[in-house]
Amino acid sequence: MLFLVGLGLGDEKDITVKGLEAVQSCKRVYLDAYTSIVIGCRNEATGAPETAPLESFYGIAPGTIVLADRELVEQKADQILAGATEANIAFLVVGDPFGATTHTDLFLRAIKQNIPVKVIHNTSIVNGVGACGLQLYSFGAIVTIPFFTDRWRPDSFYAKIESNQTLKLHTLCLLDIRVKEQSEQDLLAGRRVYEQPRFMTVRQAAAQLLEVEAKLKRNVCGPDSPAVAIARLGADSQRIVFGTLGEFVDAYDELFGAPLHSLVLPGPEIHELEMEMLQLNILPGSKLSKN
Amino acid sequence: MLFLVGLGLGDEKDITVKGLEAVQSCKRVYLDAYTSIVIGCRNEATGAPETAPLESFYGIAPGTIVLADRELVEQKADQILAGATEANIAFLVVGDPFGATTHTDLFLRAIKQNIPVKVIHNTSIVNGVGACGLQLYSFGAIVTIPFFTDRWRPDSFYAKIESNQTLKLHTLCLLDIRVKEQSEQDLLAGRRVYEQPRFMTVRQAAAQLLEVEAKLKRNVCGPDSPAVAIARLGADSQRIVFGTLGEFVDAYDELFGAPLHSLVLPGPEIHELEMEMLQLNILPGSKLSKN
Repeated sequence: MLFLVGLGLGDEKDITVKGLEAVQSCKRVYLDAYTSIVIGCRNEATGAPETAPLESFYGIAPGTIVLADRELVEQKADQILAGATEANIAFLVVGDPFGATTHTDLFLRAIKQNIPVKVIHNTSIVNGVGACGLQLYSFGAIVTIPFFTDRWRPDSFYAKIESNQTLKLHTLCLLDIRVKEQSEQDLLAGRRVYEQPRFMTVRQAAAQLLEVEAKLKRNVCGPDSPAVAIARLGADSQRIVFGTLGEFVDAYDELFGAPLHSLVLPGPEIHELEMEMLQLNILPGSKLSKN
Repeated sequence: MLFLVGLGLGDEKDITVKGLEAVQSCKRVYLDAYTSIVIGCRNEATGAPETAPLESFYGIAPGTIVLADRELVEQKADQILAGATEANIAFLVVGDPFGATTHTDLFLRAIKQNIPVKVIHNTSIVNGVGACGLQLYSFGAIVTIPFFTDRWRPDSFYAKIESNQTLKLHTLCLLDIRVKEQSEQDLLAGRRVYEQPRFMTVRQAAAQLLEVEAKLKRNVCGPDSPAVAIARLGADSQRIVFGTLGEFVDAYDELFGAPLHSLVLPGPEIHELEMEMLQLNILPGSKLSKN
């Protein structure tokens, strides 16, 4: 059996009891190490994921958990699935197992090999975002904001945010994560040298949104646009901040702290109860303060 | 401290380890019994929630869990919060704590009384819906389909589904739940007599969608529209069925089984990987079958 186990957000204790029992029954355990990270199970210096705290909490032997990078999951999936008709194999995913296309692909591969698959759901940013106080039924499509490079500065997220706003809906912006990426030069030269993991911050995202607004000028995400920064959702160090995009760009990095960050752009109509929740986390001195 | 603990979907084992530890530390435990139900912890005959399986699994004394109905949460919230500055109180919510406005209200009341609040997230239908194979980032706003009555047959969900389709987005339809409701006559007469719990089925929802389509005729949700039925997501008895709305109306009730049901209307463009997932659960004989 293949178990696809969501780890939720936050720390090792956010696994469900069902998920924990599944992991403990498994011969091999993999951890998705490229679409997200377990907050608090990350090497402070390198940013790379660490498996020891998870193994210790699950009560499984040190070294059991194999970090699965993109190459392993997308090109060597059969290694992961090998023997899964006889023994239990777990694939752990931060958030919910169906949060990324690549896990759906693994699910389908297993089904085609007649391997029974059991999915154990958990929270992800898609529903956890409700913690900021904006109601889930008032969110439109999710957008992703990728790291801009010198030559690649896409703006397709802008039109999606605009569509959501037209429908009076909020937008959850997922911020780019680059784990075990190769530079263009190393990739072309075939060198297996990897860059340090990078996690987009709220400040970087806000700056990119302002850049696109300055270019397209349709009044979607300017310096005065309200926004909600969400850092480390579900962890003890969780921080939610309500302010404007301009204020976020001007803020100091320590305000938001370590990864992971997400950003929410509220729609044009914020319900009274929603605003009351947002004001609990107002950036001190923000022009959006109601006090 | 007030703990708002998400129970996830499925059964009692879908609580997180963090949530379980919180519940076990509490002096009083309430269970939201009117916005959703724990599948498998429901009286077969009456449909009402049962707390014994939860108490047994959590290892807390029988009778500890108090069923919280709408009246208690909305009118007597102070009863729930009483003493929470000295002792731990848990409020359990099926899915995620921020799935319904009423829990946000409880959160705010606690904050105003200087009661520390800790939210323990869990999966809800909002992200668990990815299990059907449609990608979460291709969903638009969520709609709710309420039970039609003789005189009240609202159709506001129709325009929302239409907007999502225009943006090539899928729509998650949440189906109405009526737990401990009073009839109009009993309400007017002030009689505390409650109706049997009712949970809208996929067949009922499909029939209502077809009725609104027949009235508004904008080709949003007709008999040939593809749809995904999701029953008891996360439970062992989970069933996902892909077919058309017309086929669902004509299906027999046992095909979908017991509550809770949800319905997804895919957008006009279904990605290849999504279609491969949907075909795994095709209704036998459906006109959408690719085989």
